[in-house]
Amino acid sequence: MMNEIDIKAGLHTVAGFTFSGVCIGDENKKNLALIFSEVKETIGVAVYTKNDVKAAPVLISQQHDSETPIKRVVLINSGQANAFTGKKGFHDAYHCVSTVANRLSVNKEHVYLGSTGSIGYPIPIDDIIDGIDKVSEGRGSSFIYAQNFIEATMTTDTRPKQAGIRYIDNGKIINIGATVKGSGMIMPNMATMLCTVLTDVNISHDILKSALNTAIDKSFHCTTVDGDTSTNDTVFLLANGYAKNKKIELQDASYELFVKNLTKLLEHLAKEMIADGEGITKFITIKVSGVPSEENGKSIAFSIANSPLVKTALFGEQMNWGRILMAAGKAYTGLDFNRLNMKINNIQVIRESEPTDDKSHNEAAQTLKNRDIEICLDLNQGDYEFTAWTCDFSYEYVKINAGYIS
Amino acid sequence: MMNEIDIKAGLHTVAGFTFSGVCIGDENKKNLALIFSEVKETIGVAVYTKNDVKAAPVLISQQHDSETPIKRVVLINSGQANAFTGKKGFHDAYHCVSTVANRLSVNKEHVYLGSTGSIGYPIPIDDIIDGIDKVSEGRGSSFIYAQNFIEATMTTDTRPKQAGIRYIDNGKIINIGATVKGSGMIMPNMATMLCTVLTDVNISHDILKSALNTAIDKSFHCTTVDGDTSTNDTVFLLANGYAKNKKIELQDASYELFVKNLTKLLEHLAKEMIADGEGITKFITIKVSGVPSEENGKSIAFSIANSPLVKTALFGEQMNWGRILMAAGKAYTGLDFNRLNMKINNIQVIRESEPTDDKSHNEAAQTLKNRDIEICLDLNQGDYEFTAWTCDFSYEYVKINAGYIS
Repeated sequence: MMNEIDIKAGLHTVAGFTFSGVCIGDENKKNLALIFSEVKETIGVAVYTKNDVKAAPVLISQQHDSETPIKRVVLINSGQANAFTGKKGFHDAYHCVSTVANRLSVNKEHVYLGSTGSIGYPIPIDDIIDGIDKVSEGRGSSFIYAQNFIEATMTTDTRPKQAGIRYIDNGKIINIGATVKGSGMIMPNMATMLCTVLTDVNISHDILKSALNTAIDKSFHCTTVDGDTSTNDTVFLLANGYAKNKKIELQDASYELFVKNLTKLLEHLAKEMIADGEGITKFITIKVSGVPSEENGKSIAFSIANSPLVKTALFGEQMNWGRILMAAGKAYTGLDFNRLNMKINNIQVIRESEPTDDKSHNEAAQTLKNRDIEICLDLNQGDYEFTAWTCDFSYEYVKINAGYIS
Repeated sequence: MMNEIDIKAGLHTVAGFTFSGVCIGDENKKNLALIFSEVKETIGVAVYTKNDVKAAPVLISQQHDSETPIKRVVLINSGQANAFTGKKGFHDAYHCVSTVANRLSVNKEHVYLGSTGSIGYPIPIDDIIDGIDKVSEGRGSSFIYAQNFIEATMTTDTRPKQAGIRYIDNGKIINIGATVKGSGMIMPNMATMLCTVLTDVNISHDILKSALNTAIDKSFHCTTVDGDTSTNDTVFLLANGYAKNKKIELQDASYELFVKNLTKLLEHLAKEMIADGEGITKFITIKVSGVPSEENGKSIAFSIANSPLVKTALFGEQMNWGRILMAAGKAYTGLDFNRLNMKINNIQVIRESEPTDDKSHNEAAQTLKNRDIEICLDLNQGDYEFTAWTCDFSYEYVKINAGYIS
């Protein structure tokens, strides 16, 4: 299957990498995860949380990015985020890096480190150091090993989320596989979206970085659960060049093809992440068009997507379009709202800023019982658009996040 | 009682105004409210919602502000917000203004108009036009009439909220009385904070405007329930000069005294508004200090105050300080979080960015059972501070806003 998301594919369909996930300490779930690239020339790029408070593993991975493009190891622990853990947190993170680098005979700066879990709690450093041997030994390249890796990165995710895509560029088959853990931030104490992408494309480091940024802008950066952003959010991408395509070194047709497929894959996983959120009853798409800039569209779409009043109304399946407009207006774009058209699930409810007829409103209200809700606003004053994906706010959201897990 | 909030005082303790609130149409609550100033020279200033989508009464009151400083009437209907009601909405609002102006023998531009209720629904224009006679006839100056006015502006408020303050400036007694309706936006369909302030101070129009802006910046602009901002939010302030003080025309000591007392009164009402929110179980104060600018403090305080994860954690009485730091970091101020001190209800839980001991954390956790929660962050890198007030997110919030009113 070419050029299409393949949900049976994933990390394991990209040759040249081995995976492992093991259980360390007293936990009864896998909680230490490793990817190793067998190819010495493998390069890596990553995108990190913009939160001013960054966890120790984020700062260390950023440091490693500045030292060399080569990346051969991704080591992730789940349970503790190692964020706001003071000097000990940094010391522990460095200890993990040097141990795994030593064990796998790579340089320290070849290692990407990730943590996910509770903020403010130190990682169980002795268990992890002991576990590095076990996780390194347990590696394999098939589906089951990739699944072990994924399970060991999960926190309250209800299922492993991975997929792959395959395309042909000038006669060469190129594979991309990816996994994501996290459900936005809708989990008690848990705080992280971690995404790992592997590919066999042959590409230069700068161009790979640009490709990842572009793809993320059109996928993860279009999603929101509650407007909260973790201290640990990271997307890692490793490319080993196994596909033997002519090296992509410019933003040419081959680059565009790679970006297109990478974007498609990350968009799929971003939506999967929202859909896996506990407490979610609705998957909501908000499309804002007819605006003078993409930035305007993004401001308005996110203002709607993050509005608690909109999210609770949609949970309640209420035809409360006034709240949608209130939220659009509080994006403070200064745009004119006097020629607006709005559709809910493709039924026009506002035309040139006047409500349409009762029949349309009743029909639109009926469709709010669906799981998938699409809201389209056309401001009719420009050629740009932006689409955001989000979910509703339910009793379960409050219940889970208030820690009342019965 | 001088210089102190007096909860037995309010609109009625400012001489020279008459009040009325009546029931119109088929409603079984009062829903049409009027204030009339008997003094011809009464001036008015107002502050309106910054939402790009403004209701018809807001646009009309703004228009009247541009025409003359004289304001003698405040007419408010509750039930329908007259927002996003198209051309009919404007026509209806103008009809109300001309009818009440005619009935009370004032110019149209002497009228302030307010609406509160559901967005997207027209006001019951025939009932209001008929009701203007009734509400004009029913006026009186005592407590009971002021209470009628207030009740007629309420939507799902659980109680009337008013207070007054009295102070002496150069031997003259000056009175300020005010009322507020609304509970942020935490009500089904309802969408408005409306505040009406009356005073007998003798002051010039420009200076009064500056005083109101300053007071609002330190009161209503420090509060948030859910980050949502209505299409109708308005604060009206009328001053009739009855106090016979030397006219305040400069930002001098008399001005400072007036601003101080006005701010105190509006801060009291802003807190009352949060505390009256249905579904609220906690009143939360967030103080951010040690920052290089007030703007930095405001960004961080509001990022915490509007974080659904922080609000649900506090509803659950969870000692989840990591979420507070996550929210502080996602204000994207670029400040250094490595010398931060944090206190919860005056118990130090973080010192120089390291968690303090378990004993302190347990003590702080115990205090989360209180209704009032104070969170203080000191970033230790500047002389500015900002304090925000907010509430938690509860099951009731979702229940009410999802429309599941059992």
